[in-house]
Amino acid sequence: MANITEPRTLSGFMELLPDRQVIFDKIRRKLEDVYSLYGFYPLDTPILEYSEVLLAKAGGETEKQIYRFNKGDTDLSMRFDLTVPLAKYVAKNAGELTFPFKRYQIGKVYRGERAQKGRFREFYQSDIDIIGDGELSLVNDAEIPGIIYRIFTELGITDFTIRINNRKVLGGLFELFGLGGNEAEVLRVIDKLEKIGGEAVKEELSTLGIDMKAAGELLELLTHKRSNTETIETLRAMAGKSELLDEGVNELATVTELLSGFGVPDKNFRIDLTIARGLDYYTGTVYETMINSHPEIGSVCSGGRYENLAGYYTNRKLPGVGISIGLTRLFYVLNENGWLCESQKYPSQVLVIPMGDDYARAIEVSQYLRDKGISTQIYFEKKKFKARIGYADKLSIPFCIFIGEDEIKEGNVSLKNMTDGTQEKYSLEDCAATIRKALEDLGSTALVKSL
Amino acid sequence: MANITEPRTLSGFMELLPDRQVIFDKIRRKLEDVYSLYGFYPLDTPILEYSEVLLAKAGGETEKQIYRFNKGDTDLSMRFDLTVPLAKYVAKNAGELTFPFKRYQIGKVYRGERAQKGRFREFYQSDIDIIGDGELSLVNDAEIPGIIYRIFTELGITDFTIRINNRKVLGGLFELFGLGGNEAEVLRVIDKLEKIGGEAVKEELSTLGIDMKAAGELLELLTHKRSNTETIETLRAMAGKSELLDEGVNELATVTELLSGFGVPDKNFRIDLTIARGLDYYTGTVYETMINSHPEIGSVCSGGRYENLAGYYTNRKLPGVGISIGLTRLFYVLNENGWLCESQKYPSQVLVIPMGDDYARAIEVSQYLRDKGISTQIYFEKKKFKARIGYADKLSIPFCIFIGEDEIKEGNVSLKNMTDGTQEKYSLEDCAATIRKALEDLGSTALVKSL
Repeated sequence: MANITEPRTLSGFMELLPDRQVIFDKIRRKLEDVYSLYGFYPLDTPILEYSEVLLAKAGGETEKQIYRFNKGDTDLSMRFDLTVPLAKYVAKNAGELTFPFKRYQIGKVYRGERAQKGRFREFYQSDIDIIGDGELSLVNDAEIPGIIYRIFTELGITDFTIRINNRKVLGGLFELFGLGGNEAEVLRVIDKLEKIGGEAVKEELSTLGIDMKAAGELLELLTHKRSNTETIETLRAMAGKSELLDEGVNELATVTELLSGFGVPDKNFRIDLTIARGLDYYTGTVYETMINSHPEIGSVCSGGRYENLAGYYTNRKLPGVGISIGLTRLFYVLNENGWLCESQKYPSQVLVIPMGDDYARAIEVSQYLRDKGISTQIYFEKKKFKARIGYADKLSIPFCIFIGEDEIKEGNVSLKNMTDGTQEKYSLEDCAATIRKALEDLGSTALVKSL
Repeated sequence: MANITEPRTLSGFMELLPDRQVIFDKIRRKLEDVYSLYGFYPLDTPILEYSEVLLAKAGGETEKQIYRFNKGDTDLSMRFDLTVPLAKYVAKNAGELTFPFKRYQIGKVYRGERAQKGRFREFYQSDIDIIGDGELSLVNDAEIPGIIYRIFTELGITDFTIRINNRKVLGGLFELFGLGGNEAEVLRVIDKLEKIGGEAVKEELSTLGIDMKAAGELLELLTHKRSNTETIETLRAMAGKSELLDEGVNELATVTELLSGFGVPDKNFRIDLTIARGLDYYTGTVYETMINSHPEIGSVCSGGRYENLAGYYTNRKLPGVGISIGLTRLFYVLNENGWLCESQKYPSQVLVIPMGDDYARAIEVSQYLRDKGISTQIYFEKKKFKARIGYADKLSIPFCIFIGEDEIKEGNVSLKNMTDGTQEKYSLEDCAATIRKALEDLGSTALVKSL
């Protein structure tokens, strides 16, 4: 070939090697499994939409990052999140949907951000939302952290905290402190707490219309460490001063009470009055999820309650609650830090190696194992033995089965456990049972090392 | 809201309602399960690539259909198939891959074709390929139909035929008939056989340099119905006349012999010498898969053996064999014809309905069922009983559990089988067992009606 084009991949576009991709996909499927266990429908929407539809709401930073272009006369954009497509979908199909509508979507989204290590221009988001028609029970707000808890523990992450707050509580407090009109700005300042520290936040707050003393009191109220019960009590002590505050406190208390029923232990859950989730979008419960030993990663799973999903597309009021995992970013962090379970990176549990040219028995053995649900591949290439076993080694396949003349004559197989190096002859039936038992003994299906 | 944007979806972009999407996703996961069972790695590549890379080989029709645009200074294109990204990936990462490299990829591709019923501009392809380094055993060519057989039968499709041919056989025959130089054109003519009929094909062949008599003999040879054994015998009878033909016949005979070992019954497999797969790309075995009762659909799964995957990106010779399912198109056809199993369209197996305001027990029951692997959702909204049970009805959820004051007091649950209408009280443990047994009795996990 005269002309060779260099096979490059765009920067900011994650393209994994096989032994990473196989773990990524196991994580993706684990998310699908858990969402399905709670009765969420899967949803899939186009990656391309009319720009007019996709950008009905967007502006500023988001719009600059969009991949937008014309094809013929049509102005097209690639989706930059899964929320706008959901809003479009629900507004478009409202007449045919049954509410509450519970859906998950795991899909790629596109943002032309400045290229930077750990920043992606194409990345997976993994979203769940529950959408009501006109109204939606608060109990849904308590179920969401239950789902997140199951996902993280099933992945193998145990030392994490789901932080919860309620925007009405914040709004009520700002009212009481005379910051009512500036809510969006106050939230932006509070959101910077971990970055710039308490003093700087107080200074910024005081420029919004309260004195340093009041700013200090507000900050103390928001940031002082209390148990969940103490936080609720502290807030209840302010009852009767702001309807909004009272409503928020009742919601927060209800969600907190229901949480343990949904299986979330106290240690994995904390009311944190500083959480605001910068957006104007959320109106009630808000969530963030931190890996305790690594707060520097930031929230790995965030969301909340909103009053109206699709106001840009329909007059129908569609309140909802949802949460999003930045799957590509989470995977990147887990991988960079060496936190993925390397024992999970094999593409199949068994490699069958025919020792001669007779493949019939090797094929028969493989079919038998597959029918038992054991993933199996056969090495068909005419290579030296070392290359054959080396293939299993390089792919981290936990079991090899050798089929030579003896095994064919005797009707058995030689099974090698690649982890401990032991090798023994078995009947086909015992071989399958031995593999199955060994895989069970390996036990954990965790994909992430204990964090 | 003053400005309402109409929530439209681009034409040619499939966006399914929830009860269709849930079946689509079960089909997608079934494909993933089977590919994994054979030890294929999952692969995921970007949807956007440098145009220069993606279009290194393309030309003509393909290039016109591409979604191509500039972002800043970068000339970008959306992938139009999964083969070019695979070639790029393997060339780019050849040093880090272990060969043979077996991967599957299920992903969206983009072609700006003329909008037309049943034609999609965004659609899923589901590809598997086995790539060798320098060489690749022919046995792989026999494994591929084994995988296809398992996928179709597990989906519920049983009456289908995998048609197999070998391009070397065709090439050899064309040589013998003096059509050697015009191979590509001859293939294009033969490919039209089902569309334009034998006489028209003969006429067109005769314009390529042979007389009508020879054209008739060639056509008879290619199209006469024979058993697989007879076809091999007919071809063997011509041995010694063309090296290419002999090589092709040997390959075809070997693949045929191995196939039953890979679990493909005779009735699901047929040598068909008319299959050419129009492309210049294939060099050996070629496959097509037809649903017998509906030949008008065309091949639902096609592929073959190629000599060199990535000649445009590397000097390394990378032969392979692969097959592709046009998943979106297949799903569209199954759905349009009413061939999907409607019993599979529920988002969860159980709906728990709290009859009063006490959700604690409902949550406890749901958690118990989920821990047993039974997908369960709870109806939290304050609606009349009719609306609650109507929700289960509309979502085709097969079981409802009612939890009222009596059930809470007695520590049991009322289980309603929505299929037969029966309702009984059970302990939680018996309830789970009853659901599990009933789901097992429903038996089939087929997603497609028997075709």
